[in-house]
Amino acid sequence: MKIKEPRKIRAILKIQSEMRKILAEHLRKKGFIEISPVILSPMTDPLNHPTMPGDVTCYGKQYHLTQSMIFHKQIAMKFLEKIFIFSPNIRIEHPDRKKTGRHLFEFTQLDLEVRGASREDMMNLCEELITDVIATIKRDCKTELDLLARRLKIPKKPFKQIHYEDAYKKYGKNFETMISKTHDGPVWIIDIPLKSREFYDREDPEKPGFLRDMDLIYPEGYGEALSGGEREYDYERIKTRIHKKGQKLSQFKEYMQVAKDDLPPSAGFGIGIERLTRFICGLKSIEDASLFPKVPGKYGI
Amino acid sequence: MKIKEPRKIRAILKIQSEMRKILAEHLRKKGFIEISPVILSPMTDPLNHPTMPGDVTCYGKQYHLTQSMIFHKQIAMKFLEKIFIFSPNIRIEHPDRKKTGRHLFEFTQLDLEVRGASREDMMNLCEELITDVIATIKRDCKTELDLLARRLKIPKKPFKQIHYEDAYKKYGKNFETMISKTHDGPVWIIDIPLKSREFYDREDPEKPGFLRDMDLIYPEGYGEALSGGEREYDYERIKTRIHKKGQKLSQFKEYMQVAKDDLPPSAGFGIGIERLTRFICGLKSIEDASLFPKVPGKYGI
Repeated sequence: MKIKEPRKIRAILKIQSEMRKILAEHLRKKGFIEISPVILSPMTDPLNHPTMPGDVTCYGKQYHLTQSMIFHKQIAMKFLEKIFIFSPNIRIEHPDRKKTGRHLFEFTQLDLEVRGASREDMMNLCEELITDVIATIKRDCKTELDLLARRLKIPKKPFKQIHYEDAYKKYGKNFETMISKTHDGPVWIIDIPLKSREFYDREDPEKPGFLRDMDLIYPEGYGEALSGGEREYDYERIKTRIHKKGQKLSQFKEYMQVAKDDLPPSAGFGIGIERLTRFICGLKSIEDASLFPKVPGKYGI
Repeated sequence: MKIKEPRKIRAILKIQSEMRKILAEHLRKKGFIEISPVILSPMTDPLNHPTMPGDVTCYGKQYHLTQSMIFHKQIAMKFLEKIFIFSPNIRIEHPDRKKTGRHLFEFTQLDLEVRGASREDMMNLCEELITDVIATIKRDCKTELDLLARRLKIPKKPFKQIHYEDAYKKYGKNFETMISKTHDGPVWIIDIPLKSREFYDREDPEKPGFLRDMDLIYPEGYGEALSGGEREYDYERIKTRIHKKGQKLSQFKEYMQVAKDDLPPSAGFGIGIERLTRFICGLKSIEDASLFPKVPGKYGI
């Protein structure tokens, strides 16, 4: 942490611990089952931006460190209807990202998935989760928020929605930053073009070339909160999308086997715990949202 | 999983999810703060048995996959009095361990630590945690336990205690297995000889050569449940112990820096979630305690 005052460090860690509690309780009340994270797997999320490989050889086979549990979440849908995981992700980002104030190369995301759900179901659930966590922290962690000089506003539902292309037209390439800086409540970005996302995001059958997915942007300049959406589940369409990305089916062998057999339709999202902590605590840098932060390009324990 | 019946898989995952809830609630009620796991660090638990290294290079530096968070827990004691973490551990065990039915090379342990606590405090806390989780699962997961044909007994407190040397004398080298098979309640092993454990376990000042630590053995043949104890915190004594083990101070550089400055005395333990799931669900193999099991020597997703 950059912050050195022990009582501020304690306040942040207390709030983060409460966040985990509130989020998990909220989901359990709605019938979600918590499953264990996966750290090593022969397959992981290829992401839509380049990262350095985090590979480890175990018993002669190559394993990747989890960049996200997307494929495992989809496979879990064969057994469970609603799941969540506090999932540690390793993404060895370009060292340039050290300066963003919102990137860590190791972080935890609360990752969730619901069988048969729509994007709109997930947006509703997310709005309920976020307003619950903010309202509860505001009520139960008054002393800690005061110490951090953070005045939290409970966002009004439903959150504002902007179509990706409108956002681009109005704010230009850096629309995410601009929207974040110019709003005082969270904003959804929807209808993201197919070419700018991963192969597993489902194409909108009524709007070809666009996805049934969404991003959430925090207000007050805190930037991206989460990504999510409906998932592709049809074997042939997944195959086409992987080829379009220039990726290889063999990278996702076991996932493709399940898809060939039967992958249930689902939707979900993943919300970064450290970014949410940064927003709730009003921290300048995400480095202060973890006792042992791993900032791209920097050495950390 | 080896078990193929979806309703049994669901029952196990439901029970495991409830276990996580009960354990976390129990600890929060006692004032514990949940902190985030650490997956990559330049330093990790050297353990007391050989494992293959799980190393990853990030930005030109070598990081180890966490074998346990012992050093991070001790360092966290500088800021917080009582902590817990659902901590994923990677231990690339010898492939022979595939046959034990109780080893995974990736698993989660509920790891906890308390500043200023004694071994006896930790044994009491552990007995309360374990009886709470068993009693609550027995009450709330009747259907699931019936489906798995598991009859759970609530253990009586205090659990039986056996001194390491007495256990060795009575049962021989495999005393752990023997004690597990011949008891119907959990059994503590205490006063473990210094030479058979890691350098960070505190030596008993009143019984030199023996440690202020403990293991817990599950009954009915389920084997080891957890290890824990009081930690060494004195810089000079830590140095001596590391040298005795033939390890190098440079392996634990940042930890040693904190120890030189001020490492608070503490005690704690780590309890494997999959082993506890196996015991509570009465599973033959630990492979059935995870949706994506990683068994030593076996390929897994």
